[in-house]
Amino acid sequence: MLSLLDLRARIATGRLTPAGAVGLVREAIAAREPEVGALVCVDPAPHVAPDGPLAGIAVGVKDIIDTADLPTAMGSAIYAGWRPRADAPVVARLRRLGAVPLAKTTTTPFAFMDPTATRNPRNPGHTPGGSSAGSAAAVAAGMLPLALGTQTGGSVIRPAAFCGVVGVKPSFRLLPTVGVKCFSWALDTVGLFAAGVADAAHALALMTDRPGLDLPATDPGAPRIGIVTQDFCAAPAPEALAALARAAAAAERAGATLRDLALPAPFGEAFACHPTIQDFEAHHALAWEYAHHREALPPHLRAALERAQGIETPAYDAARRVAHHARRGLKDVFGESGVDVILTVSAPGPAPAGLASTGDSRFNRLWTLMGVPCVTLPVDVTAAGLPLGVQVIARFGDDGRALAAARLIERALA
Amino acid sequence: MLSLLDLRARIATGRLTPAGAVGLVREAIAAREPEVGALVCVDPAPHVAPDGPLAGIAVGVKDIIDTADLPTAMGSAIYAGWRPRADAPVVARLRRLGAVPLAKTTTTPFAFMDPTATRNPRNPGHTPGGSSAGSAAAVAAGMLPLALGTQTGGSVIRPAAFCGVVGVKPSFRLLPTVGVKCFSWALDTVGLFAAGVADAAHALALMTDRPGLDLPATDPGAPRIGIVTQDFCAAPAPEALAALARAAAAAERAGATLRDLALPAPFGEAFACHPTIQDFEAHHALAWEYAHHREALPPHLRAALERAQGIETPAYDAARRVAHHARRGLKDVFGESGVDVILTVSAPGPAPAGLASTGDSRFNRLWTLMGVPCVTLPVDVTAAGLPLGVQVIARFGDDGRALAAARLIERALA
Repeated sequence: MLSLLDLRARIATGRLTPAGAVGLVREAIAAREPEVGALVCVDPAPHVAPDGPLAGIAVGVKDIIDTADLPTAMGSAIYAGWRPRADAPVVARLRRLGAVPLAKTTTTPFAFMDPTATRNPRNPGHTPGGSSAGSAAAVAAGMLPLALGTQTGGSVIRPAAFCGVVGVKPSFRLLPTVGVKCFSWALDTVGLFAAGVADAAHALALMTDRPGLDLPATDPGAPRIGIVTQDFCAAPAPEALAALARAAAAAERAGATLRDLALPAPFGEAFACHPTIQDFEAHHALAWEYAHHREALPPHLRAALERAQGIETPAYDAARRVAHHARRGLKDVFGESGVDVILTVSAPGPAPAGLASTGDSRFNRLWTLMGVPCVTLPVDVTAAGLPLGVQVIARFGDDGRALAAARLIERALA
Repeated sequence: MLSLLDLRARIATGRLTPAGAVGLVREAIAAREPEVGALVCVDPAPHVAPDGPLAGIAVGVKDIIDTADLPTAMGSAIYAGWRPRADAPVVARLRRLGAVPLAKTTTTPFAFMDPTATRNPRNPGHTPGGSSAGSAAAVAAGMLPLALGTQTGGSVIRPAAFCGVVGVKPSFRLLPTVGVKCFSWALDTVGLFAAGVADAAHALALMTDRPGLDLPATDPGAPRIGIVTQDFCAAPAPEALAALARAAAAAERAGATLRDLALPAPFGEAFACHPTIQDFEAHHALAWEYAHHREALPPHLRAALERAQGIETPAYDAARRVAHHARRGLKDVFGESGVDVILTVSAPGPAPAGLASTGDSRFNRLWTLMGVPCVTLPVDVTAAGLPLGVQVIARFGDDGRALAAARLIERALA
């Protein structure tokens, strides 16, 4: 994989130019893209800024995020060739930092569950996950050092885990969703994919102008970690649990304090509310597409929007109240247990075989609904070459601590 | 003015067809628009639905709200002729209810403070206010029975008060801001303009599928009203205070219980934080326009975005914390005082003379930041024919109570 920090170090010391770094990316794309199929389009002649803290860093932009210089097709024929007027603020910010938004990456249609044709670079017979399929696959294949995705259920953490890269879903709205095609305004969250935790942390710190998110020069102290198994939904596969145990053991070796943490019943209720909020909002957010292009919607999405017509407004309001109380309750869980971060599986197991399904987001949905930062990192690989990840979760706004704990585990595993 | 409920009653009883109702609107536009200048464009041949609960209701859509069938120019040459792909969900919802999004209404550029050429229909020598200038003026001039606007500071309540119409800024995100050009994602709120409180309440109830927002058939009981003077900012003009006293006396005659309510110091601090949050987010939300079309930005907006480059991220984060605590504190104010709603001035006075300024939002900004529902209604008229309004404010999510109390005052004044 291409490490953002490594590329930047080579540029900073004059061993590589920004244009040369983009050239490396182009070579990698030429070599890997035919097999992986992670990209919708590549800018043939992008402006490569000569300087800036991300100069020379080519970025993949999920194709539901507006770009003024490249089409934005939402993974759907309804938007084929669509050219937004403006860059989304996250893209404008990357340009200002010197980065090169080089390619649009594949997305499931409107970031729902209908699959893309993208293949998992670790094993092309398996899905890369979704909905940010192309962003995860492009970073995993070594085609790009940084990519933007979005998560409404598990669309950053799950594909990152399936592809064996680091994925960060920051606190809700730490990165603005302006100019990002909406599925659910209470849930949609912009996130990042990178080769390692330090790469992702560096990019997030620059994008949000919060230097504290970057890994501190001094050791932040060993974290207190709560191990959570999310018993409110079906258990993960044994290999996923083994990866969680391996990550926990590594953390302990590095000095972390571990304890098991059971989430009380209200979190199961909140988990169950996620689809109500998501689908109710989606049927409003995509009302124009549903009214005018229903036949062009893919089957999973069309069925979900049809079902969503039946969600009563009081059920939506009740679900929002449950989520609101669970968000407050989660603060108490952190406060009363004394843990700094939660450690749990990133997905039910490795990437499923075939491309018919993008996998299951059940270990991600609660955390998206809570709006808390999640960082997934690769821990193990199955016999079939498929990665297994764990995710580190912190309090709302405590993104720096989630990144620091993920880095500690990453180092301990190395 | 054209009452939505009156038009609907005439359609329901067969005295008017939906097409006939739209025809009345066209006649009114032909008669009044040359003087007022509230409209950017009018659909020459719209689809008029034969039925639906808002069939025959022509709606004005502020020109920062996406429409698939009409251009959306954001009040700026940068977006001249721009055609969004999709209707914003609020527009799609109106169409589904049978309404006819007939016209785009003028907006200050990107909904900031640089004025439009729109005139106040009550006195063409005065501003209609902003930023939702055209929506307020079109309803006031009797050109449209319903119009959509947005408020980030005071852009619904202030122009409604200046033009002598009812304006509703609902609870934050009761109406989705998807497909609405973003200025500040924490503040932007979609609102409505109509001839009377019952007209606005009926439209809001249908748009949000919350029948409880419509005025109850039975008397909800006389409200307990807290009179608030917002002493954290400069005092309003004497005629604004006289209108507040007149509205309070009318409420008391109708059985309401009144008490003076002083807001403690944290609300002054929150008030002072509004510009930090708004302008910091605007400089991100409009980053593409600032980077690529700075010279085409109007002077107030350009200056604000230039200043906003200097707002440090920690100052923004601190402002958000102050706002968060004030939102909780406002719940306590309602709870401890026992008041159902707050009554305060809608603006510092009548619409200023000339078109150089859209007026001052200082009596609106705190409530936008709190996310609470605000309803303004006309109370009095100055010797120059300029309306004076008061606003009724309720707890977050208690939009129905704000509307019911506003209706009680409206009736008592009649």
